[in-house]
Amino acid sequence: MLIAVLGTGSVGRALAGRLDELGHTVTVGTRDPEATRTRTDDDGRATYAEWAGAHPHIGLERFAAAAAGAELVVNATGGDVSLDVLTLAGADNLAGKVLLDVANPLDHSHGFPPRLFVKDADSLAEMIQRAFPAARVVKSLNTMNADVMVRPAELPGPTSVFVSGDDAEAKQLVTGLLVAMGHTDVIDLGGLATARGAEMVLPLWISLRLHLGTNAFNFHVVR
Amino acid sequence: MLIAVLGTGSVGRALAGRLDELGHTVTVGTRDPEATRTRTDDDGRATYAEWAGAHPHIGLERFAAAAAGAELVVNATGGDVSLDVLTLAGADNLAGKVLLDVANPLDHSHGFPPRLFVKDADSLAEMIQRAFPAARVVKSLNTMNADVMVRPAELPGPTSVFVSGDDAEAKQLVTGLLVAMGHTDVIDLGGLATARGAEMVLPLWISLRLHLGTNAFNFHVVR
Repeated sequence: MLIAVLGTGSVGRALAGRLDELGHTVTVGTRDPEATRTRTDDDGRATYAEWAGAHPHIGLERFAAAAAGAELVVNATGGDVSLDVLTLAGADNLAGKVLLDVANPLDHSHGFPPRLFVKDADSLAEMIQRAFPAARVVKSLNTMNADVMVRPAELPGPTSVFVSGDDAEAKQLVTGLLVAMGHTDVIDLGGLATARGAEMVLPLWISLRLHLGTNAFNFHVVR
Repeated sequence: MLIAVLGTGSVGRALAGRLDELGHTVTVGTRDPEATRTRTDDDGRATYAEWAGAHPHIGLERFAAAAAGAELVVNATGGDVSLDVLTLAGADNLAGKVLLDVANPLDHSHGFPPRLFVKDADSLAEMIQRAFPAARVVKSLNTMNADVMVRPAELPGPTSVFVSGDDAEAKQLVTGLLVAMGHTDVIDLGGLATARGAEMVLPLWISLRLHLGTNAFNFHVVR
């Protein structure tokens, strides 16, 4: 599949790298490819150029060009910039396509821990769907760390991943990718409004992150 | 231990019954004991009188009398009436005592699914602590069904229960009760403000309830 991953941070890189490894043709979307390629300071992580050197098959394009050529678009940008980024990607380039939204609506303006800028009566996923009505939005993967998203089997036991969306075929396509990445318990919560619940898990996730001292954990729905 | 369980619904009954079974001296608190004893319509459940007949050692008192005689008070009332009920129980009767809050701040005024009347920047547990500053509030158990609260070992695998509170000794006392009920993975999230995250899990819990068609599930934090 031709996949565009919008976002060059930890989540974008993890998903792009893993989807490439699984045999898909992946293009990363960014605001300014030249700036991304030449950035030298990246918060202590490898620079994008270093990461890209280890992933020679993954392209890098502006958001619009990446989305234009893709069959599936992944929103791996920060929740506070997601609508802007998708606007740059272009409604026409998203129309009819599955748009996998893995972002969280984090509001950092009150310090740490972050709050959510939308919750309860609405969700980021629904905001995106309203802004791009011809896209087939599926919410998933936002309840775990990037490394767990793409290699859940490295955790010591099965865990769950949630899927929300109004388009059954789109959810089926995303479910296939999740299974390919190693997810064994994909729970279809229902329509896109159920993304509210999945997004509202973040404050608990952050408390657990602090308590456990690691990102390497995930929820399993035991039943 | 002398324990008051405030609330005569499913959660109050489950906790009162199990704590009695574990050898504690339990009194259920209600607004009007006579009305509770003579109620005949209880949403298809056993009436209180039927339930009480099967639990002859459990007392029934007004909220204030139940709390006055207790060493530990459990808030098992609906989140929307919890502050009113605790006011009836009396600040003096809560002072210095461990107050285990298992309620969720459900707002049913928008239909189904319910929303939360407080979230993100505050929590029901913190509202209770501010209203009763001399109580030692601990939030726990609100992320699961009443039967799972008191018999988690009946699920097919270990699951997690969260504890939030500003008083370490109070959390230790609650943890002891949780372990006695069969909880094997008690996660101390930190101060009472971490109850925000635990309470915000409810919308996901409700979606899972609908999807799975059962209340008999719980989250396990796999790490």
